[in-house]
Amino acid sequence: MCSGGGLVAYSEANSSSGVSSINPLEDGSQKKRVVVLGTGWAGTSFLKNLKDPSYDVQVISPRNYFAFTPLLPSVTCGTVEARSIVEPIRNIVRKKNVDIHYWEAECFKIDAENKKVYCRSNADTNISGKEEFAVDYDYLVIAMGARPNTFNTPGVEENCLFLKEVEDAQKIRRTVIDCFERASLPNLTDDEKQKILQFVVVGGGPTGVEFAAELHDFVSEDLVKLYPKVKDLVKITLLEAGEHILNMFDKRITTFAEEKFKREGMDLKMGAMVVKVSDKEISTKEMKSGEISSMPYGMVVWSTGIGTRPVILDFMKQIGQANRRVLATDEWLRVEAKNDIYALGDCATINQRKVMEDISAIFTKADKDNSGTLTVKEFQEALDDICERYPQVRLYLKNNQMLSLVDLLKDSKGDVAKESVELNIEEFKSALSKVDSQMKNLPATAQVAAQQGAYLANCFNRMEECEKNPEGPLRYRGEGRHRFRPFRYKHFGQFAPLGGEQTAAQLPGDWVSIGHSSQWLWYSVYASKLVSWRTRALVVSDWVRRFIFGRDSSQI
Amino acid sequence: MCSGGGLVAYSEANSSSGVSSINPLEDGSQKKRVVVLGTGWAGTSFLKNLKDPSYDVQVISPRNYFAFTPLLPSVTCGTVEARSIVEPIRNIVRKKNVDIHYWEAECFKIDAENKKVYCRSNADTNISGKEEFAVDYDYLVIAMGARPNTFNTPGVEENCLFLKEVEDAQKIRRTVIDCFERASLPNLTDDEKQKILQFVVVGGGPTGVEFAAELHDFVSEDLVKLYPKVKDLVKITLLEAGEHILNMFDKRITTFAEEKFKREGMDLKMGAMVVKVSDKEISTKEMKSGEISSMPYGMVVWSTGIGTRPVILDFMKQIGQANRRVLATDEWLRVEAKNDIYALGDCATINQRKVMEDISAIFTKADKDNSGTLTVKEFQEALDDICERYPQVRLYLKNNQMLSLVDLLKDSKGDVAKESVELNIEEFKSALSKVDSQMKNLPATAQVAAQQGAYLANCFNRMEECEKNPEGPLRYRGEGRHRFRPFRYKHFGQFAPLGGEQTAAQLPGDWVSIGHSSQWLWYSVYASKLVSWRTRALVVSDWVRRFIFGRDSSQI
Repeated sequence: MCSGGGLVAYSEANSSSGVSSINPLEDGSQKKRVVVLGTGWAGTSFLKNLKDPSYDVQVISPRNYFAFTPLLPSVTCGTVEARSIVEPIRNIVRKKNVDIHYWEAECFKIDAENKKVYCRSNADTNISGKEEFAVDYDYLVIAMGARPNTFNTPGVEENCLFLKEVEDAQKIRRTVIDCFERASLPNLTDDEKQKILQFVVVGGGPTGVEFAAELHDFVSEDLVKLYPKVKDLVKITLLEAGEHILNMFDKRITTFAEEKFKREGMDLKMGAMVVKVSDKEISTKEMKSGEISSMPYGMVVWSTGIGTRPVILDFMKQIGQANRRVLATDEWLRVEAKNDIYALGDCATINQRKVMEDISAIFTKADKDNSGTLTVKEFQEALDDICERYPQVRLYLKNNQMLSLVDLLKDSKGDVAKESVELNIEEFKSALSKVDSQMKNLPATAQVAAQQGAYLANCFNRMEECEKNPEGPLRYRGEGRHRFRPFRYKHFGQFAPLGGEQTAAQLPGDWVSIGHSSQWLWYSVYASKLVSWRTRALVVSDWVRRFIFGRDSSQI
Repeated sequence: MCSGGGLVAYSEANSSSGVSSINPLEDGSQKKRVVVLGTGWAGTSFLKNLKDPSYDVQVISPRNYFAFTPLLPSVTCGTVEARSIVEPIRNIVRKKNVDIHYWEAECFKIDAENKKVYCRSNADTNISGKEEFAVDYDYLVIAMGARPNTFNTPGVEENCLFLKEVEDAQKIRRTVIDCFERASLPNLTDDEKQKILQFVVVGGGPTGVEFAAELHDFVSEDLVKLYPKVKDLVKITLLEAGEHILNMFDKRITTFAEEKFKREGMDLKMGAMVVKVSDKEISTKEMKSGEISSMPYGMVVWSTGIGTRPVILDFMKQIGQANRRVLATDEWLRVEAKNDIYALGDCATINQRKVMEDISAIFTKADKDNSGTLTVKEFQEALDDICERYPQVRLYLKNNQMLSLVDLLKDSKGDVAKESVELNIEEFKSALSKVDSQMKNLPATAQVAAQQGAYLANCFNRMEECEKNPEGPLRYRGEGRHRFRPFRYKHFGQFAPLGGEQTAAQLPGDWVSIGHSSQWLWYSVYASKLVSWRTRALVVSDWVRRFIFGRDSSQI
């Protein structure tokens, strides 16, 4: 077997480096061992909400802190300090009544068969050969997040900066100042200065747009005063392969943002796909004409979405998901076909169950009198259970403005008196045939990850209770009910800071707000759950500092 | 000639890399070109105090900020943030009415003969071959500071951390957290953990002692809570080659500090000289027994004093100071034998003129009636001029508790009535023979550097005025007076923070203060001159943050 073979090979190759397996329960304790991989939004939210002391939790992550990532673009320009948006994970867990241990290491191999994860300390150590260790688990929670997606564009890895980690933001900050210092050197022509002060942002999503806006503010509010001689040579270019920036937002927001950026002199290039980045130039292909052009740059920030980490790809091969792009879980966040492994946040997607896959089972369970046909009454009685298991049914009714399921049935049976409607299996299939088109994947956002973490912790907290009294939906392919209600994402709206203290907000129910107030709204919504008082106080004091003293331009 | 030859070779070797010489005065302006190398205490103090708009100033330094270095040990443990103790140099100079340009580059060659400095931008650039440039000067101010002195101990450069730059402090901070995380890993024995948590500080001067104290506080106040399992394995060892730590301080302070550290469980090793540092172990030689022993370590911070930078050593060869250890200047901070080059701060020492070198000239000038002998009256009249030029004379009188110069003369003539004393040249020599023993070099401190910078700026401000009306002491080997009074260092006391908010202060006049209040005294004295309101406010807000939230232990 592929995974076993891989592991044996690994063990042999590493036998001399002393990979030791640790089992914290050798003392005979009966606690279930939960291993959590990652300390981002999903992992931290899980840890914060876990309350049942009957677990022994081990957290493994190369980052010993949780970072409030929505403020990362602000860190790039010094509006907020890096240290203000992080919270040591040990601070978060030390006051809990659950046994939580943290190891600063990176998981490089998940062995689902033997219920082990293999980890490597990423720090140098003076104790050679002890950098690697293995940890046993009863439950594994994978929350490792994603890596930037380069789409295998040549040169991106080597020459671009990213905006996923705190270190990335700090590096961008140093690079911006560096470009200004280099462009100020005495022996350069204006043309050469212009090349150095060409900042390129690839990707018109919320992160790229917010960074471009922050950079514009930093340049026009602070740096022009310190580098007066080069201020007119600065150019910020935003490249987007699609036809509009912020394309997941309402059209009004997109238009507002595009007009604002153009008015401010930002260079917006839509329909331009990056094909290559060399150490001096970035080459783009015009989507319409296919024409390829290059421009020199001083700094490129790459922000075009997320890709799967190698360790996850390797794990997917082990469990037969090799042909998928992203690790799939069911609606209870369990990795498909693995009952003891959960995956949440950016490293996984929920593979929503299709109605059509279970249509016969649904029909059989709903047809209580086994008549072979379904009356309206029978269907109505079954509807709640169906909608809980297959939320796309309710979404379909709502989106097509059908007030009741009779409207749905009408579609397939024509105009009839509702009491007398009876459906056979073929008619039932036809009535529900379009329902699955409503399914879409959840966005890879902090909001989703945080809600998933909280949901899963809640499941763990009530595991025993729900084993006895299952509260989930009816099992259509089996007996009884599911233990838990499936995960449901609650959308609180989406925000895109556009610079100059303007933020566009798209709230549930098609509310759109653009203006000063939205920024505070944005922060209060985001900050309400996961962030400590400490972090909040630090960020506010950073804002006060910036308000009084401006952003700092020292190269540290 | 050595220097010329070196330069020609340089020019030839680099002709293809396009070293271009810039001359900002090609527009015909009559301003004198002043080039300042360095943005530390000396350079920044010079820039802050320069007021005469008739200079065109170019500042060259690889650091685009001034750092308030006395707080560096606090940065190592997060008591104060790195960003709070720095001030961008462009902020400092942009409000002045003097033309000041800043280039972020490192000077790698001073060409005194052609009045040029050669510089290299230390940043990568997408404009190849333009990293190097040359700058012409009329006056050169060398304020490049020093580098850590390793005494050529093998392995120090590669394996030790230093504490001179802001980056050093940040690196130490990350390393400390790193050691704690590594020691917390699951598969280590207590013995191995102990090795990782062995922190070694080499050098018992104020910096080393303050860092050791800060580290002890960080561990005992903050880290013990987050790493409860390893807290008892931490050991901080302070190595000092001499017999006592803080040996430049009063005995009372030394004793207090040594006892405090021992009480707190710090491991003090006096008389232990480091002979080698490998990647895992540090080897020391017991000064008395000559015995060599080794111990494993997790982190070594090297803080044993300062050495001369290579570019200064090279410059010293050019100007015939090859056999000196440090660049020498006269009392006016001019590099000896170079009237247009000044050196100040840690990169230079003042070579105080000896009385005995000029004794005949002094005698001749004082002997106004050319009688061949000096009466008490003649000597008394000449004394002020002599003391101004040779301050060691006044110091000698004071230290030997001689109330007037008659006491000095008594020493050489025996007990006589003071009016009738007459000295011939030999007796005069003998009377002053011990005076030069009073001379000592100024310490390499921020106080000295800052005062030198202010002094030199003041000379530049009044250059024209003092050319006409020289205000300095009498020239003994020449006619007239020196243009300026020589530099005099005014000692405001010395401070050594000892942790736990205790600071030892040694003030002029043998005042010694140890306790809580000294820290604030220390800060107010230091901060009074060079630091901006911005920096002061940031540092105070850092202290408030730490008071409320403790120090941060995230690894960034």
